[in-house]
Amino acid sequence: MADQIRVLGIAGSLRKHSVNKGLLCAAQTVLPEGMDLEIFDLKEIPLFNEDILTAGPPQSVLELKRRIAAADGLLIAIPEYNFTIPGVLKNAIDWASRPVKDSPLVGKPVALMGAGGIMGTVRAQLAFRQMGPFLNLYIMNRPEVLVTRSWEKFDAEGNLKDEATLHAVRGLLEAFAGWVTRFRPHAVVS
Amino acid sequence: MADQIRVLGIAGSLRKHSVNKGLLCAAQTVLPEGMDLEIFDLKEIPLFNEDILTAGPPQSVLELKRRIAAADGLLIAIPEYNFTIPGVLKNAIDWASRPVKDSPLVGKPVALMGAGGIMGTVRAQLAFRQMGPFLNLYIMNRPEVLVTRSWEKFDAEGNLKDEATLHAVRGLLEAFAGWVTRFRPHAVVS
Amino acid sequence: MADQIRVLGIAGSLRKHSVNKGLLCAAQTVLPEGMDLEIFDLKEIPLFNEDILTAGPPQSVLELKRRIAAADGLLIAIPEYNFTIPGVLKNAIDWASRPVKDSPLVGKPVALMGAGGIMGTVRAQLAFRQMGPFLNLYIMNRPEVLVTRSWEKFDAEGNLKDEATLHAVRGLLEAFAGWVTRFRPHAVVS
Amino acid sequence: MADQIRVLGIAGSLRKHSVNKGLLCAAQTVLPEGMDLEIFDLKEIPLFNEDILTAGPPQSVLELKRRIAAADGLLIAIPEYNFTIPGVLKNAIDWASRPVKDSPLVGKPVALMGAGGIMGTVRAQLAFRQMGPFLNLYIMNRPEVLVTRSWEKFDAEGNLKDEATLHAVRGLLEAFAGWVTRFRPHAVVS
Repeated sequence: MADQIRVLGIAGSLRKHSVNKGLLCAAQTVLPEGMDLEIFDLKEIPLFNEDILTAGPPQSVLELKRRIAAADGLLIAIPEYNFTIPGVLKNAIDWASRPVKDSPLVGKPVALMGAGGIMGTVRAQLAFRQMGPFLNLYIMNRPEVLVTRSWEKFDAEGNLKDEATLHAVRGLLEAFAGWVTRFRPHAVVS
Repeated sequence: MADQIRVLGIAGSLRKHSVNKGLLCAAQTVLPEGMDLEIFDLKEIPLFNEDILTAGPPQSVLELKRRIAAADGLLIAIPEYNFTIPGVLKNAIDWASRPVKDSPLVGKPVALMGAGGIMGTVRAQLAFRQMGPFLNLYIMNRPEVLVTRSWEKFDAEGNLKDEATLHAVRGLLEAFAGWVTRFRPHAVVS
Repeated sequence: MADQIRVLGIAGSLRKHSVNKGLLCAAQTVLPEGMDLEIFDLKEIPLFNEDILTAGPPQSVLELKRRIAAADGLLIAIPEYNFTIPGVLKNAIDWASRPVKDSPLVGKPVALMGAGGIMGTVRAQLAFRQMGPFLNLYIMNRPEVLVTRSWEKFDAEGNLKDEATLHAVRGLLEAFAGWVTRFRPHAVVS
Repeated sequence: MADQIRVLGIAGSLRKHSVNKGLLCAAQTVLPEGMDLEIFDLKEIPLFNEDILTAGPPQSVLELKRRIAAADGLLIAIPEYNFTIPGVLKNAIDWASRPVKDSPLVGKPVALMGAGGIMGTVRAQLAFRQMGPFLNLYIMNRPEVLVTRSWEKFDAEGNLKDEATLHAVRGLLEAFAGWVTRFRPHAVVS
């Protein structure tokens, strides 16, 4: 199964009924052939502290790094808080990025999507992209999935019930399959 | 002492010997007349979770909000991680900003400074500014305090030992005194 | 008429029937008492060239700078091209900002609005704000005027025909009256 | 010579002795084997006006678009004006990007470098990246070439005379050769 594309999904919210968690779950229902998507919940990741990093990071952080290392790409579902990325998500990336020389994030393909905010998380997604050059993240340009008016599209448990959004997520995943392949060590793109 | 300017200092790092904590401590040694500066340590602030917010935020968060409410302005010392603001700092702001309608951050004057990063935290400071319009933060434009080559300017305990940097911090505080006054409810600016 | 607030309006488009020109014209119909709004058309401003600046800028540029200097604040109507500000608008600001030590832009209050783009020019407006700290522009945080689906709200000549948008523009101008007053040299704010 | 990599260089300044033009000229002296670099001067490109676009763009714009279409990648030398990209450069991109459906920019690999500004054009380069998702530009993450203290590194005619900077430019070009290859239609990456 050398060609299987393994994607790790991370939602930037700890809320139980998060619409961004719901967006990841919805993605699992429309995976292109040859792609699998596991979800990593950030709830066990503590606040980043370089002193703890030096002493030895906790198991939850080591597990996050193992899961990122094992993935061919990351699918990030970003809520927008205060016109930028949530602290919870940034904190997880801070852990996974240190030390930089061994970070599994470096050179990883990434796809972004998000639900909520005033404009479908457009500013949070833009803010996320600012990290790309530092970590050499290969963040896919397109398509954008910016889910506005989330209260109409998700139920109270955070389940997506909007067909057009599901279709957009499917389009994102199909594009991501091609994007990830482009960055594989022995890719043949034709 | 109605004219006393009370500033709350927050460093975006939990590390014991953080240079950004050191920058705040240095600021305390060069305060303009009529300004005081208390420092709030983020170490007790948990990760943001909207479910916990709904159930009732922890004491540490309530204390952070009280301290922000009591301050005339905020002085933020921003490390740069991955070309943007640290998760630890963003997480504290996420807590202090919710619920938005009662947030003590809204309409608060803010000054930024930072040490470290590749370019003195220039990209982290820029990222912080993206929040301004959402929270109606009055973020001072100038002067910039971007401390490059921090390993030459702080000792191993994070104490600032560079005169030029101290001078720059002093200049920032003097400008901030004027900036805060401009936004006071009954300001007379002449 | 010492208290009259003089606003200079600039649209970032040269197109005759530009919706952003239309937004400025609409603003002229809903001015708060005590505010006037003149519009400066960028069509005579050439491309910026520092060699020409050194030799002596053209009359159109000198006129732009005089008009900015005479204004208490700027109202910028920003189209969005390629997820950021138009070259035409940035070019005018490059001229008006040089030499920096004499620039009439420094310390000027600014309000932003925009029509078009994929998300109502949200990314162009964010990009504009990046200039604030360099030029010490006092860019008002709120309210935002982000006009989506502009083809439904303007006629073919670029005239605004949407009441809700007009109401939002009116709200922006009222807030701007207060914002400009705050930054006047001899302001008494109470 | 199917494997020859053709790069088009564009500097965002019209000044005769521009250091960013000088940076492009320096790049021509350290090209990796198999790469050629032609420079396009923006001096004939007029200000963007959608009415002119509709009537038919001028020859200079058509020529710019032909040159971009013929190139495998773009090397952009970005000055920083007012903490962001120059209007002159953005204006050229606005022309080359319209109409979007036929734009030769879409899907083009891009490398950025820059000299000047307060921090080596770091904020201008960041601002340029904001266009990436709209135009599906493949902007290389690394290495960064941020030339600070340009007055020490270029002579009065804008010629680069600093070996360390030349070395950094060479490193950028080598990385870009690999980056461009990754995005070629029939790439075999191994």
